[in-house]
Amino acid sequence: MRKEFRDLASVEEAEEIAEKLTPERRVEEVPLVEARGRVLAESVESPIDVPGFDRSLMDGYAVRARDTYGADEVEPATLEVVGSVSAGTSPDVTVGEGEAAEIATGAPIPEGADAVVPVERTATDGEHVEVRTALAPADSVMFAGSDVAAGERALLAGETVSQREIGLAAAVGTETVPVYAPPRVGIVSTGDELVRPGGTLAEGQIHDVNTFSVAAAVEEAGGEPKIYDHVGDDYDEMVRVMREAAEECDLVLSSGSTSASDEDVVYRVVKEEGELLLHGVALKPGRPTVFGRLDETPFVGLPGNPISALSVFRIFVAGMVRAAAGKEREAERRTLSATVADEVRTEGGRTRILPVGLVERGGEGGTLAYSVDKGSGATTSLTLADGYVTVEPATNYLDAGDEVEVSLFGGASPPALLGAGETNSLLNDTLEGRGARWLSVGSVEGARRLRNGIVDVAAVGVPSEELGELGELGVSDVSLVRGYDRRVGYARADGGSEDAEVVGVLPDGYALRRRFDEDNARDEDDMDAEAETRVFRSEEGAVNAVVSGKVDAAFVGEDVAVRNDLSFEPTGWSTVDFLVADDRREKEGVVSFLDAVAELSETKTKGYRVPDDSGDTVERWD
Amino acid sequence: MRKEFRDLASVEEAEEIAEKLTPERRVEEVPLVEARGRVLAESVESPIDVPGFDRSLMDGYAVRARDTYGADEVEPATLEVVGSVSAGTSPDVTVGEGEAAEIATGAPIPEGADAVVPVERTATDGEHVEVRTALAPADSVMFAGSDVAAGERALLAGETVSQREIGLAAAVGTETVPVYAPPRVGIVSTGDELVRPGGTLAEGQIHDVNTFSVAAAVEEAGGEPKIYDHVGDDYDEMVRVMREAAEECDLVLSSGSTSASDEDVVYRVVKEEGELLLHGVALKPGRPTVFGRLDETPFVGLPGNPISALSVFRIFVAGMVRAAAGKEREAERRTLSATVADEVRTEGGRTRILPVGLVERGGEGGTLAYSVDKGSGATTSLTLADGYVTVEPATNYLDAGDEVEVSLFGGASPPALLGAGETNSLLNDTLEGRGARWLSVGSVEGARRLRNGIVDVAAVGVPSEELGELGELGVSDVSLVRGYDRRVGYARADGGSEDAEVVGVLPDGYALRRRFDEDNARDEDDMDAEAETRVFRSEEGAVNAVVSGKVDAAFVGEDVAVRNDLSFEPTGWSTVDFLVADDRREKEGVVSFLDAVAELSETKTKGYRVPDDSGDTVERWD
Repeated sequence: MRKEFRDLASVEEAEEIAEKLTPERRVEEVPLVEARGRVLAESVESPIDVPGFDRSLMDGYAVRARDTYGADEVEPATLEVVGSVSAGTSPDVTVGEGEAAEIATGAPIPEGADAVVPVERTATDGEHVEVRTALAPADSVMFAGSDVAAGERALLAGETVSQREIGLAAAVGTETVPVYAPPRVGIVSTGDELVRPGGTLAEGQIHDVNTFSVAAAVEEAGGEPKIYDHVGDDYDEMVRVMREAAEECDLVLSSGSTSASDEDVVYRVVKEEGELLLHGVALKPGRPTVFGRLDETPFVGLPGNPISALSVFRIFVAGMVRAAAGKEREAERRTLSATVADEVRTEGGRTRILPVGLVERGGEGGTLAYSVDKGSGATTSLTLADGYVTVEPATNYLDAGDEVEVSLFGGASPPALLGAGETNSLLNDTLEGRGARWLSVGSVEGARRLRNGIVDVAAVGVPSEELGELGELGVSDVSLVRGYDRRVGYARADGGSEDAEVVGVLPDGYALRRRFDEDNARDEDDMDAEAETRVFRSEEGAVNAVVSGKVDAAFVGEDVAVRNDLSFEPTGWSTVDFLVADDRREKEGVVSFLDAVAELSETKTKGYRVPDDSGDTVERWD
Repeated sequence: MRKEFRDLASVEEAEEIAEKLTPERRVEEVPLVEARGRVLAESVESPIDVPGFDRSLMDGYAVRARDTYGADEVEPATLEVVGSVSAGTSPDVTVGEGEAAEIATGAPIPEGADAVVPVERTATDGEHVEVRTALAPADSVMFAGSDVAAGERALLAGETVSQREIGLAAAVGTETVPVYAPPRVGIVSTGDELVRPGGTLAEGQIHDVNTFSVAAAVEEAGGEPKIYDHVGDDYDEMVRVMREAAEECDLVLSSGSTSASDEDVVYRVVKEEGELLLHGVALKPGRPTVFGRLDETPFVGLPGNPISALSVFRIFVAGMVRAAAGKEREAERRTLSATVADEVRTEGGRTRILPVGLVERGGEGGTLAYSVDKGSGATTSLTLADGYVTVEPATNYLDAGDEVEVSLFGGASPPALLGAGETNSLLNDTLEGRGARWLSVGSVEGARRLRNGIVDVAAVGVPSEELGELGELGVSDVSLVRGYDRRVGYARADGGSEDAEVVGVLPDGYALRRRFDEDNARDEDDMDAEAETRVFRSEEGAVNAVVSGKVDAAFVGEDVAVRNDLSFEPTGWSTVDFLVADDRREKEGVVSFLDAVAELSETKTKGYRVPDDSGDTVERWD
């Protein structure tokens, strides 16, 4: 019997349980070189005075200040040089009345002296020194203990150790500091369909993502991940591995096998072998979440979907790890206020965590947030999102134009340039190193996103009348900038047949598909030659199908055919031009990208041709 | 002969040289679990379609969409259940007309089926399933390659690897990713006077700070520090160690021995054994900086002063390390706009890097920046500073009230509470874990800082007339909040003499010193009993001097005497009260601190007495 989630806990209830399940802090002494980023568990008191002696702050001469009273450039005081003191040595000289001792920065002040005159204010013949300034006692002297006194609390418990705390700890002579140990977090991934990266996939199998992304998230929160062998959906094996993890770790996380279906056994393991505290949260994504204890060790069962797993980790688990590592439970969230680019419908009733990408509108236009939720399980939305918006259960939709607060992912910021549309290797090379993000969605969808203000630039290769009226394109005026041409045609394995073939093509809305259909329409009287097609989302996908024999040919760019060692029969050139929103033309990323296009005077990549007017605005609708 | 810096390079010139000296990037393949925080050296293309097969997004039934046309709650379509498909398995069933197969989330869609109906929209008796909704083809199906197509560029060169990139790399089956290697940075500390932490200091010696603080700074910038044996000021030894470091590392840093005095040999080593590119920068602190090459390896000689060393590292070296690690040379600087709290004079002619502490004024008052530059060599200013202000060479002073931009140190933010004045163990316990910063400067100086608006709270224990007129205290009105009393008196070693003794006391302006002077004035007719005094900056310092026999007694709090196992002769109680700036009373840190004081109904720490009105405002000047 399948079981449904009937009583979902609210996010607040789940947070309370997460707080109760937080592992206890452990304290350890670590050497200074390993202390960076840790949190001090105890205050550090200095065992010594720093400095331990009265110390010269200058290269110069140690003198009695009263011997210099009234001295100046015109009437210097002349003192007898009776010795010298180096840094790191105990002075073997005493400074009497009318005497001076040469002294280095950091050296101890010799007995009798009470001030140091900098070498710049003196002249010497070796035996005597002329002091050209009057000194007060203590000038250029740092007194013993004036930096840190013995017994003084140098570092306060609770501080995060940075290069600066490490420096102070070293100054007081501490070799090790008491810090909170990173909690050991066991990670158990489950599910018969998962294979670790590097392994070979049989039909129906996919790679294990969560073990690696969750381990990285654990580290980021200050924990020490321990990865366990992958377990299938077998109850006994799961019990064995989860028990082992519970024994060795401060917190155990599983991913997958939490859904309320009869094959998903994590919640059964926790219920029968441990203590089940919660199953199901009113959160999207993240409903099938399990909280509990196994042999007293806190346990969280994360959903199997990679987006859901990281989302649940971020909302509930990161705080547990942070708190156990001695940090604030709530990380300082970097947030940014943004405008919703496109309407988002949510079903309501659950808190929605909505991954969004960000794009700067340029000038004073602020930032737009667009939903990148491709649907469950799309791992690409991991890297296309810059942060997330939290939508409360009572809200059913976000309207375009709504202001929202975006919680930024660690290190994320809006890309310098956001583009969409066609893609090809010359474009990829042009984009590399620019902090750009490019959405490969074809000409029609690229133009649509430009029209909606979501992207700065769209690469297009179909006639403009098929993109919608350019003059009506969206929120602002649009220019068409000339790009370059790409040689396209049929890629075949050597000796492949040209007759009765199955051809791999791109989906509707892509330049290459448009070109293929056009070529075929021209030949439509020749019915025998009409090809059967199979659609691929990328040229590489189509070409791979040629290599593996699933299709006979692929209609792709010459560069792709060449790179895959296929024979290539060209049928013509396909244009790659760029639609640019006029109100984004001043954006730094757009300027630099269009400059790069203009500088493509020729290209060494086989299969491209760059015209003289590349980078010029060839059509404009003001 | 001493040598002076005659031609200082400007900061801009030094930056140019630093850029030229940046180590070349090296690329390495690292396992996913080690890739976090690294920068991708090459783009990662997916070798496979993700998913590799058409995949169910739901637990439910795989069906032919056309069999459900017109179905709804009232008139469900009834289909025959012909089998089931689990995740991770290859389907052994085909779905024909009028048929359905049970299917799990993530399982491959069996042949014949083109959509999945979620289990929630069905009912079954085991042999048949009622489908209560109409489906369109592709409903709840994720097509092969629709997440990432084979050959598609999944990760772009130049991206920093986070949990999200790691997730995507795992999804495409990548075990390792090509990233820039952290540059190996050799650290050689020099100077005869330095002893590593843990070692014992002879007279004139101090602990080596820079090795540890610079190593932490190298790590923070993305480098891999390698610490070499400490070398003294001996030329040959320095050559040997620096050569060894140059051979093993991508960049060598020394600290110390860069001054233009005859004992400072780093610049001579670089000049004679390598290539000297720069000696002396118009930067304060940081003038005695050396740039060069040793056996082709880039070399930077940092000043010996810990504040100067980290400052020069931050300005010039961090960018070299970051760039070599594949990151942006300029780290994204967190800055904050602040008001200068107290006038700062600079000599001009050099770029000044001014370490500042920050304090929030509460409400809309913004942030104040106060100078924490105690003078050269004070390691405490490392941890008292939250960031720094860059003062251009043409500027001679900053006025109180000037607006400045503060570059924040990594992770630093203004403390929740900034206090000054008296300090004691009960206060320290009360402050712990509050994100507070406390400056132990005595009552008089504490009150002065409060008057100048620099601190939120001052702990005082001398009569108010000696603090200046409270009614005139500074920028805002001030309240006096009752704290508690502390038993004070003489700490002596067991059997110590009470006659003709030397007593360790605190400096003028501290409550304990005020109390000691008062007690002694009362006994002034008894000339024989008048004690000789020696001043210590902390009670612990005075008590340590008793333990080591340097003084006969110390005038301190009972808690300090007890903690150090000394006998204690009380002479009375000293008050600890709190001056609070009224315009800071709403600050969260102040509220929480005063609440904590009010809750101190009694204390278990020996030597304290808490009155009923602790935490009450006892005097107010509105």
